[in-house]
Amino acid sequence: MTPHLPDDAVRLVSLGGIGEIGKNCTVIEYREHAIVLDCGITFPDAEMYGVDLVIPNFSYLREIRHKLRAFVLTHGHEDHIGALPFALREFALPIYGSRLTLGILTPKLEEAGLEREADLREVAARETVTIGPFRCEFFHVCHSIPDAMGIAVHTPLGTLVHTGDFKLDYTPVDGVPPDVQTLGRLGNDGVQLLLSDSTYADKPGYTPSEAVIAETFERIFADAPGRIVVATFSSLISRVQQVVDAAYAFGRRVCFVGRSMERNVSVARALGYLHVPDDRMIIEDPATLSRYPADEVAVICTGSQGEPRSALVRMANLDHRFIDIQPDDTVVVSAAAIPGNEEAVNRTIDRLTRMGAQVLYERISPVHVSGHASQEELKFVLTTLQPRFFMPVHGEYRHLAEHRRIAERVGVDAEHILVAESGAIVDLSADAIEVVGATDVSHVFVDGLTVGEVGDVTLRDRRHLAEDGVVVVVVNVDRHTGKCLTAPDIISRGFVHAPEAEDLLDRARDVVRTAIEAGDHPDPDPQYLQNKIRSTLGRRLFRATRRRPVILPIVTEV
Amino acid sequence: MTPHLPDDAVRLVSLGGIGEIGKNCTVIEYREHAIVLDCGITFPDAEMYGVDLVIPNFSYLREIRHKLRAFVLTHGHEDHIGALPFALREFALPIYGSRLTLGILTPKLEEAGLEREADLREVAARETVTIGPFRCEFFHVCHSIPDAMGIAVHTPLGTLVHTGDFKLDYTPVDGVPPDVQTLGRLGNDGVQLLLSDSTYADKPGYTPSEAVIAETFERIFADAPGRIVVATFSSLISRVQQVVDAAYAFGRRVCFVGRSMERNVSVARALGYLHVPDDRMIIEDPATLSRYPADEVAVICTGSQGEPRSALVRMANLDHRFIDIQPDDTVVVSAAAIPGNEEAVNRTIDRLTRMGAQVLYERISPVHVSGHASQEELKFVLTTLQPRFFMPVHGEYRHLAEHRRIAERVGVDAEHILVAESGAIVDLSADAIEVVGATDVSHVFVDGLTVGEVGDVTLRDRRHLAEDGVVVVVVNVDRHTGKCLTAPDIISRGFVHAPEAEDLLDRARDVVRTAIEAGDHPDPDPQYLQNKIRSTLGRRLFRATRRRPVILPIVTEV
Repeated sequence: MTPHLPDDAVRLVSLGGIGEIGKNCTVIEYREHAIVLDCGITFPDAEMYGVDLVIPNFSYLREIRHKLRAFVLTHGHEDHIGALPFALREFALPIYGSRLTLGILTPKLEEAGLEREADLREVAARETVTIGPFRCEFFHVCHSIPDAMGIAVHTPLGTLVHTGDFKLDYTPVDGVPPDVQTLGRLGNDGVQLLLSDSTYADKPGYTPSEAVIAETFERIFADAPGRIVVATFSSLISRVQQVVDAAYAFGRRVCFVGRSMERNVSVARALGYLHVPDDRMIIEDPATLSRYPADEVAVICTGSQGEPRSALVRMANLDHRFIDIQPDDTVVVSAAAIPGNEEAVNRTIDRLTRMGAQVLYERISPVHVSGHASQEELKFVLTTLQPRFFMPVHGEYRHLAEHRRIAERVGVDAEHILVAESGAIVDLSADAIEVVGATDVSHVFVDGLTVGEVGDVTLRDRRHLAEDGVVVVVVNVDRHTGKCLTAPDIISRGFVHAPEAEDLLDRARDVVRTAIEAGDHPDPDPQYLQNKIRSTLGRRLFRATRRRPVILPIVTEV
Repeated sequence: MTPHLPDDAVRLVSLGGIGEIGKNCTVIEYREHAIVLDCGITFPDAEMYGVDLVIPNFSYLREIRHKLRAFVLTHGHEDHIGALPFALREFALPIYGSRLTLGILTPKLEEAGLEREADLREVAARETVTIGPFRCEFFHVCHSIPDAMGIAVHTPLGTLVHTGDFKLDYTPVDGVPPDVQTLGRLGNDGVQLLLSDSTYADKPGYTPSEAVIAETFERIFADAPGRIVVATFSSLISRVQQVVDAAYAFGRRVCFVGRSMERNVSVARALGYLHVPDDRMIIEDPATLSRYPADEVAVICTGSQGEPRSALVRMANLDHRFIDIQPDDTVVVSAAAIPGNEEAVNRTIDRLTRMGAQVLYERISPVHVSGHASQEELKFVLTTLQPRFFMPVHGEYRHLAEHRRIAERVGVDAEHILVAESGAIVDLSADAIEVVGATDVSHVFVDGLTVGEVGDVTLRDRRHLAEDGVVVVVVNVDRHTGKCLTAPDIISRGFVHAPEAEDLLDRARDVVRTAIEAGDHPDPDPQYLQNKIRSTLGRRLFRATRRRPVILPIVTEV
């Protein structure tokens, strides 16, 4: 039961993004109105077998459906906008966002067949839009995508500031510095609640500017004897800009490879966020790459996370249609591995190195910086805004806890800091912030074509199958005598290697038969027989192998 | 076919440890004699579902069985000694190693029931033993375990130096600095071939001394209000020593928790490698921990890699028999996450933070340093030994490639550097080094009680099962008419959530029946029917769900 929302409170409910990475989605609610800040996806962790992606649980949105007024977006990353194609099917609301954010969202909506219904409303930094009782003021922040914004939501109960994802970069690639002036004014005017990005709260010091990458790229482009292949996130438009700039300076043409890279580059160029000094320097068709001398080419591609079907991984597996890595090539992995992807990234680097390429990656060369604020930057924001209340957001629990410590250190009243994870229903009044309830934020899995059909039971089964495989036992029982009509049939997959296992399975057949016929009563209950097979065989196989395969007994009575 | 070994060559065959991390095992062979350097295991990667550990493939040892003279060990880590209990069953050879190495090996052999046959021969640094034509000279190196050694193997064809795992630590915790003098003498006398640790070859600069940890621990112990729990590798005896020292300095008792921690600590103390200033400061029985004031206790435990059944992970899951983490407790994860373990480690840190503990880990505090040499240290070794030939060993391919570049930069002739991965048969003569063949080094998996029964097919099946689950189809066919006697029976696990799937599986039943009866010929071949079910149903399920479960058709003809 969701508790009643008092008239003198603003309610915040995060359906994702606090105490976990990804699928950011936060509801801000006042009386009969609510807006939704961001609506992202997350990628499955290693234990979510076979799941393609995870979206926020929309139960709470359904509950307050009549109050919903708009989606408001901070920037164009998947973990902030990726779930909109799913959300829009249920909640046909206007969507506010910056030009690039909406530009990146549009093809996603087209793919979902939703572009016509979608009501996209472009806003720019320093603009304010009024949505019901909420006056949303947008301000520019620097992040690893251009046109990112934080949002000040002015409510009847005071101002709430949400930083979005950010870092302080005073020499950003796109030349647009963070809007520290607006932060100053907001702080001056008084901030009731700050919600601030905690992703890098455990990192001491400052996150370096994107500018440091430029020097590295210059060195790489000056020295590389053959082709240069740079893999990065397709949304990291500023990184792409830096590669384009270096290529131009050193007289190389560029070729964009990989579906999401081509798509984002085309959006960013059309909207003016990516500048290519000379159109003729673009190789539009990767199929023609081989016509150009190797030292006049730079490829910018996907695959920095070792994703199985990405361009770079295809190259590493000799499986790319147009690009064969040569011993003189230089490959730059310009990204950090997201936790869980390290093995895949390392494997890709190894394969490329084996082909003779010079591979540069974060550990050996400064080819990547993060887009998130480190501790000193977080202190700056807290000090500037002097919020009365503070909620760390974005990041796993340890990051939130570290951010709380930072806030206390710069003088925020410990009683006024709330660490609440996704799902907490938080009410903010003039002089208190508290958790008043919880909503269902269990994962909703998207697997193949379907949403939600893969649940925790299915995942548990997959885990179990992955661990020790499956053994199927088929028994035909004479319903009159309770005896087996034929020898039990046993097949297995993923359990033990078939040739070595034959003996074991032969003996298992006898075990099953004995177990069934031991009862010696006619017309046995198939359910009972199934349980008996499962337990007898399970024990036997465990004794012999120390493994516990999934046992599926199928009893047919004839 | 293994090529003939000429009389004027020394042969090197690595069964593991080059181009991969772990299961180090290298054969050195001359005429009718061979020794085996180290014999370790590796832990399975995320895609080796259900595998407990991986051991070297002993095919080559079987081939030259009559030549084998001894195992020679560098240090007591699992990836260097862990496979000996498996190897000794087949190859009853003497084992040479340092006191601590043999001390750690002994309980493993006891567990395998091999302690009586085992012929353990203790050697100390600066000693030399002669094994056939090989004069093995041991020299001390610093690594994250005491009593680690490198080996110079003097052969009729010149001296081969193997560094083992090492770093240069001039202020090591055990007070025994690296034996740079012996390295100098060996270099002076002439080294034909160097095999050197590449694990950290992609790390610029120097690896810090273990001494930096002491300062961190001092700060932690000075400040911690409640219990201190330090998780680290049980083999990292010097780290354990540092915790003991800090505990003693700040008047805390220590308690060792976790099976491998207790075992290694007991071995190291008995042999004099771990010094506890006062026996009374040890809490022998973890069950009595609660009797001591929290601020007088330090727990040293396993679980730094987030291993599911380790002490720290049990604490994080409220599942430890004797230790409940309290809000005032300080937990130190004094280790780096091995690639592939990051998610498990992060999850553990998050859980402990959620319980209110202050958790310190590598990213936020200098609580760990590596035991492997960085680039400047590798340059020192190459410069000191001035080897005629060089083979980088230990590490994945990118590390080997980087080590080659380092060697070239300090003047080793590029033609004299060989990057050969595990399995390569390498012949070294007076003036050449070359790969002359290859031996089978495919993984041998240990899973449950068995060795080798889980092969690549089984793993592929497990991967497939993990991805989309399994669908079992049972059909009883009348052998005279080719018709189904009963409706096909379909059950699934890990495919789609059962309630939502009922419709889908109902339709699947019809699809199967139609497919079978379409043939309309009596006495159909069961194999043919199985294939037909598999393909028809596979297509149908893929169209409906975009998933490809494992389909197991079971056709019984009655």
